[in-house]
Amino acid sequence: MSQWKQIQQLETRLLEHVDYLYDDNFPMDIRQGLADWIEAQDWDTAVSDEPMAAMLFKNLLSQLERVRLQEQVFLQRHNMKMIQQHLQLKYSSNPVSMATVISSCLKEERRILSSACMQEQGPLEKSLQN
Amino acid sequence: MSQWKQIQQLETRLLEHVDYLYDDNFPMDIRQGLADWIEAQDWDTAVSDEPMAAMLFKNLLSQLERVRLQEQVFLQRHNMKMIQQHLQLKYSSNPVSMATVISSCLKEERRILSSACMQEQGPLEKSLQN
Repeated sequence: MSQWKQIQQLETRLLEHVDYLYDDNFPMDIRQGLADWIEAQDWDTAVSDEPMAAMLFKNLLSQLERVRLQEQVFLQRHNMKMIQQHLQLKYSSNPVSMATVISSCLKEERRILSSACMQEQGPLEKSLQN
Repeated sequence: MSQWKQIQQLETRLLEHVDYLYDDNFPMDIRQGLADWIEAQDWDTAVSDEPMAAMLFKNLLSQLERVRLQEQVFLQRHNMKMIQQHLQLKYSSNPVSMATVISSCLKEERRILSSACMQEQGPLEKSLQN
């Protein structure tokens, strides 16, 4: 199961933390629309590798274009175009910045999932782990 | 049938004109989510009536809050919150500006629908009208 699918199964209190991770810097529509592709890329390395960040930025835009062209719903197609234009303006001269944002969001999601997992374990399992 | 429903039945070429009407000034998510409510308000009068524009702005935010609280899908709920914050920042000190944008979009939609209607009529009907 993708990390994003696990995230969406969290209880409301933890989902609120996820809610705060996403804004114009990394629209949640992208996180959801390209969930598997995003999780398959090495954003952590791209944070300190400008050519790799530039390549990932270019590939992300291609992925968005593919999704937009397949989209049948007018509103969703429009929103996808808005997001493409927004990302072009924001990151085309600084793709490392985009890699940094995405890397950080994915790490924070893993931290939230991990804390949810710990809460689900009873006192016995926790003491065994310690 | 609401004006917005008629818009969505237009052919792709005309939908592209509608596409250009909507951006951060008036997100299409609002146009779709509150279609009937938006079409029932008198935005044309509010353009030159500041207290009325302020009341419509307040009511629009209430409508969005109602939609957000009813929304079951995490992504849509998040997007609705983003839009609420964006509109608060953009129009709370200038609600007339919002009324002007919405009034203009609705008029432009009617113009596009009217041109589509004229194109559907055959040469005979056109000559009869003239």
